[in-house]
Amino acid sequence: MKAYRANIIYTPSLDDLRTIRQGVIIVDDNGLIVEVSKSIQDRFKDLSVKDFGDCLLIPAFTDLHLHASQSPIRGLGYDRESDWFTGFCYPAEHRYGRIEYARVLNAELVQALWEQGTMCANIMCTTHVESAIDLFEQYVKTGMSAAIGKMNSDYGAFGEALETTEISICETIDLIRRTLGKSELVKPTIAPEFAPACTGQIMKILGELAREHGLIVHSHMCEGNFDNKMVATRFPEEKLYAEVYGKYGLFGQTTTVMAHCISCTDKEINMMAGNSVVLAHCPVAIFNGQLDCPLPVIRKFMDAGVPVGIGSDIGGSHALSIPQNMVAAIHMSKLIPGFEPLTLAEVFHMATKGGGTVFGKVGSFETGYSFDALIIDDSRWNRHIDYTLEERLSRYIYCGDSRDITHRYCAGKEVTKVC
Amino acid sequence: MKAYRANIIYTPSLDDLRTIRQGVIIVDDNGLIVEVSKSIQDRFKDLSVKDFGDCLLIPAFTDLHLHASQSPIRGLGYDRESDWFTGFCYPAEHRYGRIEYARVLNAELVQALWEQGTMCANIMCTTHVESAIDLFEQYVKTGMSAAIGKMNSDYGAFGEALETTEISICETIDLIRRTLGKSELVKPTIAPEFAPACTGQIMKILGELAREHGLIVHSHMCEGNFDNKMVATRFPEEKLYAEVYGKYGLFGQTTTVMAHCISCTDKEINMMAGNSVVLAHCPVAIFNGQLDCPLPVIRKFMDAGVPVGIGSDIGGSHALSIPQNMVAAIHMSKLIPGFEPLTLAEVFHMATKGGGTVFGKVGSFETGYSFDALIIDDSRWNRHIDYTLEERLSRYIYCGDSRDITHRYCAGKEVTKVC
Repeated sequence: MKAYRANIIYTPSLDDLRTIRQGVIIVDDNGLIVEVSKSIQDRFKDLSVKDFGDCLLIPAFTDLHLHASQSPIRGLGYDRESDWFTGFCYPAEHRYGRIEYARVLNAELVQALWEQGTMCANIMCTTHVESAIDLFEQYVKTGMSAAIGKMNSDYGAFGEALETTEISICETIDLIRRTLGKSELVKPTIAPEFAPACTGQIMKILGELAREHGLIVHSHMCEGNFDNKMVATRFPEEKLYAEVYGKYGLFGQTTTVMAHCISCTDKEINMMAGNSVVLAHCPVAIFNGQLDCPLPVIRKFMDAGVPVGIGSDIGGSHALSIPQNMVAAIHMSKLIPGFEPLTLAEVFHMATKGGGTVFGKVGSFETGYSFDALIIDDSRWNRHIDYTLEERLSRYIYCGDSRDITHRYCAGKEVTKVC
Repeated sequence: MKAYRANIIYTPSLDDLRTIRQGVIIVDDNGLIVEVSKSIQDRFKDLSVKDFGDCLLIPAFTDLHLHASQSPIRGLGYDRESDWFTGFCYPAEHRYGRIEYARVLNAELVQALWEQGTMCANIMCTTHVESAIDLFEQYVKTGMSAAIGKMNSDYGAFGEALETTEISICETIDLIRRTLGKSELVKPTIAPEFAPACTGQIMKILGELAREHGLIVHSHMCEGNFDNKMVATRFPEEKLYAEVYGKYGLFGQTTTVMAHCISCTDKEINMMAGNSVVLAHCPVAIFNGQLDCPLPVIRKFMDAGVPVGIGSDIGGSHALSIPQNMVAAIHMSKLIPGFEPLTLAEVFHMATKGGGTVFGKVGSFETGYSFDALIIDDSRWNRHIDYTLEERLSRYIYCGDSRDITHRYCAGKEVTKVC
């Protein structure tokens, strides 16, 4: 058992930001939280307390959607009209097929996520299974948590298919065989690129694999009107994106994360809620993209009961920092008339417990939750005024960066360095 | 004379991003650029060249609008409906009246601007003249460039007036008397808070002072429909913001910077162009604010011929980084249908030459321009792919931060440290 003292901030629910000045968290030997309290209780009085003084102690961030191959194109091609996919994304994914290169990129990505305080990441690799397995193996060594998928793309949505159905399935099975059960913290996922890039045949088999092995499903949905139209054309029987995924067992039959959901109909939002499908909201990527539909109303998803997390979506986004994405989520919500803008507490919940739900009891400081935490030395933002803890959190989220993170914990263990 | 070699990037005009691989800039003993070329010319061959290897060499940033008192409220109050002014802004400005506190805040601000590579800053202080003079004196010691104004606010736009007309004028004259001509790089400005917070009487005198001493005028204009309505009510004869400022000699009679201009009419945009009034576009502040009008169409200003620079507008914005504001400017422009989004070249021009125009020949690498420059070691963003120089600039602007800046020059001299 261990005890940690600092200024504790967490959000057990969307509208409940809890702060405890100089609070104490007790963590058991399995890395699970036993108790959070204002002062150390008698029964724990013999525990030595690791005291972080006036620092903040917050749940670590979860990045619910990012592409392993796309770090090298962060910050490129956002001011062009239509060639981001062919000009930047596909070449980056193609390069990732060379395993020596993928190894280097994976090492840098893991290091960058560590630096950002992202202790859980839901990562889509490319179609190349060896690169995904390498990322898995590198992750296992770090002590951080991740869900890693090999992308399936057997139908040429924008040209030639990237792989045959048969090879795609074989490689997915290979990924599962070589990774499932090898780590408590790192898991394989089922990751079809998106419905327009998949045949019905492969989606059916992927759904079966997900159910058979209890795997997280990770894909994209409703990235805009053009995307929706592709689905309506390709799948005229279902028409709706959610129905296509649902038909093939890729929509809540196991834990499911859908990225973007910009152009969702109300019906689809309700289907997500009804099937506990988690939204990976990627606001910076939306700002960077070429929007062909209204901005997504995240409050609609929240009101319907859809669990919402935050995704960096690099390289559609330049910002790997989850705080930067939280700020963008607030900005975006303010541009939508008729709906209350998102609050700091709400986006903080999304960035921690909202996304963490995909990984189990992660992202909060409630009893039984995994101790995934960051120590924030916000002294450079905490001068001159007697700030409340909520204000200190706000200053760190808006103004701070990875330089302010001094300690990182995942599953109760400190992650001091990853390379 | 000095010579500098690196990968040079600059924008002589909005649509002209120039890049020179391993180019050379020759700077004379007055800090002015003599020549920019692909290789060192014969007549300079005896000069020793300071070689920055594969780094980028770009014009330093100009921050065209920020509030000296508001660093401590960066990141606060953006998710509340209406009390940012009374809850955060005014208390911050009030505290700045205590000179001992202002001294500390000024030192931190100067240091923070240096860190961000902002070699020129157009700063609005509060009504307290001693704090403004302290900032002036601290700035003079740094070797960086700034325009510093004591705010005038003699009419209670949101309550009681902050000062009487007489004291406000006396203190402005005091600022001019104690600072004008004391520095080549740091200048006093005329800085009425905004028309609704000023009497016609004071604006008339301020206009006269600006003309008499050839001072920059720095104020706010058209911060939204509510702001416009206040002006229409207070100044029924003129009705338009630009006409009010124009009537009192505060609209282009001397170099004039107007921040925000969110709710400008087309007529006002044309008046800005006709009077060479410079727009300080503050996109992050707009995203943080409570918008009550459509987003500003910056391309309309550009097309009309209005010079456009970028302002951080801290504390309405959390982001002191000009690159972060450049990205926000692009994001904002993409949300406006019917107008071409801003390009990287365009916002880079705004952040350098566009804002620099207020300070003279600043912000470009053309002959006769002041050598205000940054050396960017972008090696952490420049791996794996053979990027063009424009792509390297884009990666730095989107993904980089102050850690990537290794050297800062203002007026031909290196500014190694400011405190």
